[in-house]
Amino acid sequence: MTNIQSLLAQMTLEEKAALCTGAGPWTTTPVERLNLPALTVTDGPHGLRRVVDVFSMINKSLPATCFPTASSLAASWDPALLHEMGQALAAEAIALDVGVILGPGVNMKRSPLCGRNFEYFAEDPYQAGVMATALIEGIQSLGVGTSLKHYAANNQEFERFSMNAEVDERTLREIYLPAFEMAVTKAQPWTVMCSYNKINGTYGSEHRQLLTDILKNEWGFEGFVVSDWGAVHDRVASLKAGLDLEMPGPKPTRVNAVIEAVRNGDLDEAVLDEAARRILNIVCRAAETPKGGEFDAAAHHALARRISAECMVLLKNNGLLPLRDPQHVAVIGRAAMQAHFQGGGSSHINPTAVDVPFTELQKLAANAEISYAAGYPEDDSHNQGLIDEAVGLAQTADVALLYIALPSFKESEGYDRADLDLTAQQVALIQAVTAVQPNTVVILNNGAPVVMGDWIDGTAAVLEAWMMGQAGGGAIADVLFGRVNPSGKLTETVPLRLTDTPAHLNFPGENGVVRYGEGLFIGYRYYDARNVAVQFPFGYGLSYTTFAYNNVRVSAENFRDVDGLTVAVDVTNAGPVAGKEIVQVYVHDHAARLVRPYKELKGFAKVSLQPGETQTVTIPLDFRAFAYYDPAYRQWVTESGQFDILVGASSADIRGRATATLCSTLQLPTILHDESTIRAWFSDPAGRELVAPIFDEMMKNGGMFSADGPEDQSIGMDMINFLMDLPLRSFFHFQETSLTQPPDDITNQLLEQVYGVGR
Amino acid sequence: MTNIQSLLAQMTLEEKAALCTGAGPWTTTPVERLNLPALTVTDGPHGLRRVVDVFSMINKSLPATCFPTASSLAASWDPALLHEMGQALAAEAIALDVGVILGPGVNMKRSPLCGRNFEYFAEDPYQAGVMATALIEGIQSLGVGTSLKHYAANNQEFERFSMNAEVDERTLREIYLPAFEMAVTKAQPWTVMCSYNKINGTYGSEHRQLLTDILKNEWGFEGFVVSDWGAVHDRVASLKAGLDLEMPGPKPTRVNAVIEAVRNGDLDEAVLDEAARRILNIVCRAAETPKGGEFDAAAHHALARRISAECMVLLKNNGLLPLRDPQHVAVIGRAAMQAHFQGGGSSHINPTAVDVPFTELQKLAANAEISYAAGYPEDDSHNQGLIDEAVGLAQTADVALLYIALPSFKESEGYDRADLDLTAQQVALIQAVTAVQPNTVVILNNGAPVVMGDWIDGTAAVLEAWMMGQAGGGAIADVLFGRVNPSGKLTETVPLRLTDTPAHLNFPGENGVVRYGEGLFIGYRYYDARNVAVQFPFGYGLSYTTFAYNNVRVSAENFRDVDGLTVAVDVTNAGPVAGKEIVQVYVHDHAARLVRPYKELKGFAKVSLQPGETQTVTIPLDFRAFAYYDPAYRQWVTESGQFDILVGASSADIRGRATATLCSTLQLPTILHDESTIRAWFSDPAGRELVAPIFDEMMKNGGMFSADGPEDQSIGMDMINFLMDLPLRSFFHFQETSLTQPPDDITNQLLEQVYGVGR
Repeated sequence: MTNIQSLLAQMTLEEKAALCTGAGPWTTTPVERLNLPALTVTDGPHGLRRVVDVFSMINKSLPATCFPTASSLAASWDPALLHEMGQALAAEAIALDVGVILGPGVNMKRSPLCGRNFEYFAEDPYQAGVMATALIEGIQSLGVGTSLKHYAANNQEFERFSMNAEVDERTLREIYLPAFEMAVTKAQPWTVMCSYNKINGTYGSEHRQLLTDILKNEWGFEGFVVSDWGAVHDRVASLKAGLDLEMPGPKPTRVNAVIEAVRNGDLDEAVLDEAARRILNIVCRAAETPKGGEFDAAAHHALARRISAECMVLLKNNGLLPLRDPQHVAVIGRAAMQAHFQGGGSSHINPTAVDVPFTELQKLAANAEISYAAGYPEDDSHNQGLIDEAVGLAQTADVALLYIALPSFKESEGYDRADLDLTAQQVALIQAVTAVQPNTVVILNNGAPVVMGDWIDGTAAVLEAWMMGQAGGGAIADVLFGRVNPSGKLTETVPLRLTDTPAHLNFPGENGVVRYGEGLFIGYRYYDARNVAVQFPFGYGLSYTTFAYNNVRVSAENFRDVDGLTVAVDVTNAGPVAGKEIVQVYVHDHAARLVRPYKELKGFAKVSLQPGETQTVTIPLDFRAFAYYDPAYRQWVTESGQFDILVGASSADIRGRATATLCSTLQLPTILHDESTIRAWFSDPAGRELVAPIFDEMMKNGGMFSADGPEDQSIGMDMINFLMDLPLRSFFHFQETSLTQPPDDITNQLLEQVYGVGR
Repeated sequence: MTNIQSLLAQMTLEEKAALCTGAGPWTTTPVERLNLPALTVTDGPHGLRRVVDVFSMINKSLPATCFPTASSLAASWDPALLHEMGQALAAEAIALDVGVILGPGVNMKRSPLCGRNFEYFAEDPYQAGVMATALIEGIQSLGVGTSLKHYAANNQEFERFSMNAEVDERTLREIYLPAFEMAVTKAQPWTVMCSYNKINGTYGSEHRQLLTDILKNEWGFEGFVVSDWGAVHDRVASLKAGLDLEMPGPKPTRVNAVIEAVRNGDLDEAVLDEAARRILNIVCRAAETPKGGEFDAAAHHALARRISAECMVLLKNNGLLPLRDPQHVAVIGRAAMQAHFQGGGSSHINPTAVDVPFTELQKLAANAEISYAAGYPEDDSHNQGLIDEAVGLAQTADVALLYIALPSFKESEGYDRADLDLTAQQVALIQAVTAVQPNTVVILNNGAPVVMGDWIDGTAAVLEAWMMGQAGGGAIADVLFGRVNPSGKLTETVPLRLTDTPAHLNFPGENGVVRYGEGLFIGYRYYDARNVAVQFPFGYGLSYTTFAYNNVRVSAENFRDVDGLTVAVDVTNAGPVAGKEIVQVYVHDHAARLVRPYKELKGFAKVSLQPGETQTVTIPLDFRAFAYYDPAYRQWVTESGQFDILVGASSADIRGRATATLCSTLQLPTILHDESTIRAWFSDPAGRELVAPIFDEMMKNGGMFSADGPEDQSIGMDMINFLMDLPLRSFFHFQETSLTQPPDDITNQLLEQVYGVGR
């Protein structure tokens, strides 16, 4: 650190300004005079997109392993696996001379339509936070940096460069920020990438509250904030807000603007120094990791296969799977030949090798006769011939395997989906094949949910294989043949219809504004609150075995918020084969001052069990597992009272529960103000003491509220309720002529007293 | 008017300030020196609550006719009927020495939980606007004023005095303001009452945009704005915003504050003069109507009965109704003896007489043996004895009539409902009675929907009788025995469950803020957009006859927005008895720049038909029937294109449709700005001309976006889509090193040119 300060002290204003803007598409500005190297960054949360052409953002990249994308990874619910993958990514970064990998992305899946959801983890901030933390820790454990993105509320592609996300503070704090918060506080990513969009009227790149107040000051982020590529609009304003590095460069106008602003006093040089210090710190740290050499492509390919198999979610199975020595297998769908394993955009990898699903299947089904039909065209057209051909094959087979990939023209970075449908041809194909072949398995490749109502009933099994990475073709075969017992579970609800989805009425916004009108209620929080049926709930996934949950218990019936609570459950593999179960813990608050979701995920564990084996799973719950963010107090709040701890195999399959009583250790300040209602005054201990006698006295006098009989003889309304909702100030104004002082003076004096008492 | 100006000129500062605050709970301040009388106002949109005690707001009032409340009235869909009722109200006002009646209320039914919905008309602004306009015109035609309330976005009782309603501008303009707008522009109510709540952070009483810019300047409101009772917080700020009269008084501190503000220059005396002028104008106009005498209570009671019968909505009928000479009738439910005919609060009337439903039934069923059981207690307790007694009666009768009134502890001004349920006892009662008596009719008294799923299946018929006014007991009998063929239709959707309702996640708000997160989508607009099933849709109601719709046609296949369109349909009474049908016209826009509800009510007509008779119903549609409000242009916008005209018997029962093509006559200005996307530039005619050549040239040069192969070989993303969403300014920044000028300068020059071209 002394080194950094000394470096900084030697730098000229011009050098510091230059350091804060990139030198090229993928490099920071070096300072040769001081032997400060350039830092190379590169796209790719699930693999490296190392572009060779130093002048291009989008040109062809060097070969690298394409692992499954984030929506797939999340479904593993296995932080250790992500840690392992992170180390593989770091090894590739070292080999390709990369100092920082631009990922992972932890934006919430607000709408399943968001084109970039395949790069994000979950509809739940806790789940996403745990997965991202593990991946970051894995990468950074080998001296390679990460960039946690896109901070914040970047939940759509439509007009993503300019859209203003209108999100209330509580929703930001409880839904859109916690995954960032957990990753920052637990894993300290070397960099955080700001989003393109505006949040409540201010660009992500200029958002001081987000970049400085919350990220750096509140969460203690130690790295630097980098702009998403092209996200800066006013360089000086962004520096002041806490945006340290603008990318890409070169941008001489930006550098000059910063120099000019310091010279004319518009920008405090200390602000520039702080940005430069943060960048220097990471550039030097990256330089400490020796680069070069080669990575073990074969080993990484094998790892990619293992990971992919862990991530697949078995959605439906009538018992057909795993396949048991089929003799005639009809393989249908061009995704069997052309693996659909990644999405378009900045995360698009040039893979070292790609498993062909058909070929991998053949390897595991050596005895079977396997035929193939494409089933659907590459584009959106209808082709009855392809369907007829597929039906012909399916009719004569023991089993039909339909490899259905959502085409890139429906799902990619850069644009949102218009619907949740497969193509019309794909739906017609599934319907036609299942009509003739009951033993039909649909294998899906997609980054986010598709609706299934039109075709799922006819299938024997459905396997969600995601954007599965370059080795996913083999992983599908592993799962179909039972070499791997599937254990993935959904981290995003599969809805029945687009019109059921939480943000439907407010997505993607218009006239430059998207209102987060559903507030806290995204994902299962919405379906719970609205009591809306879904195709498959959050946390859902089948196995080739079954698991029994017994003896859910908590460590204490009464506990203090700061001590937290531990929940334990005995999980038994009750079926015939070894398998892994993802145990989920949701917390339900019995009562709260603010509206809360019915339940929220606050812990989970993945446990591997042999047939008949029982393990006790223990999951700790901390302060935050019970708290909500109250904007009135500007803090996370716990309230004393009862909580249910729900232990489930999915969000809709709660297997056991326990109740415990929390004792809050918080001493909340008074929040009375000059518009507070009489009810609020009576709810505040100090307020009640002051107001009760005045109130009693005035009501006796009657005045404006006088009646000559019981209230129901006058206006048939509960006058006490009426009065309790009245601001105290307004009450005094109604009674003005019976007061000895102006009404506002009385209110102000009471406020002075209550704050005197409260502080 | 000269008179007013001369009066004003003679008034001192003190007199003008005093005039702008009430003298008592119900009177303005007189100026005896100038022979200016006090104006007396009184509560009650559906009857007069003329309080005798001049010092009390809530004391017992003089007898007056209690007509059905607004939610009932709206269900008549009969403006002529409301006009007639308005004249009766005016006659009572004259007799009771009242100058202005404080109503009607036209707030939208955003949530069925709003405690005061019984005082409001509809979930649709057009329907509410038409009904309110007719009522105002009726009252004012006899020289008595009205007060259109509560302006605006006052859609709940919870914390109604202080709650901040966060509503976007388009939603305000299209949903929450149009009923006010129609009533003001068509009927010029003498006064408009501001609401208690805040709208987007500013109290209704201090909301200059609402009170002055929109109400007075844009709509041309000529009367004065009065505060809801106690809604003023800062008298000077409210005067500046356009709040003319503060009520109630006396409030010397307010008057002094105004005087002081004028003296110290904080308040322009012209502002005070304008408020005083508006008040003087109405005070003098009211004085022109001679007061006193008596009103014809018997005639008004008869009118109240006729109106109530027109408003009742037959929700279900298996053919049991109308009753045909039943021999043994079991009348069950205490609402048969104690008529539940109005709600609690400021609209609570001291009625001149009250029809007892049981007695009125007896009169029309002279031959029948009629027995009675209370069925449920007055409070929320369970009483199995009452149920058993009712079941006993029902078992031995031909028919059971269940009079079920939602009790006041569940529904009143002052608090919102917690649920949409009848009491548990009432539900159990209906279930028990229908279990033994298939010929069971449920007659409901309530101001807003209740859920019916738990009990409706067992009933033979359900009649929604609303808060039916003092003569409703007779009206029920009229409908049950077929003396009146029911013709009312719902103006509010009856949902299946509370969790299905539009504002469910955002009602009633917390920490002082209620977010209108559902935006435009309230009522049927929501159920359409979400594709959610309902118990009974908006516009629904049965008759004792049936109606056939034929030959829907429009006056032109192509029409200009300013010319509008007329739709015609032939409606035939296809049943055996005379009846009235409410024909509804909804407009569906094929495509629009902004998201629009699937359909919106834009016209309706009620037609009376003898058996076999056919009438052609013609309904005009004007500019506004096709327009939406676009905040980007700050105006109502029509777009050229196709519209479907849907003619229905309800919002869910469309009987015919026609398509017509609108030609917009609008010349919209350019709305390009420095953050506009390339797509927006290309969409603007002048913008495209300027940008296309530059764009072509730069893309040829490649630069940052260069690739050595087709795009799908680089990042697999549609680069054109990527670029189209990029702000033009950002595009230039990406290409900075290939430009000869700073990127921002180029953008600014293009903007200057496009505005030069466009203007």
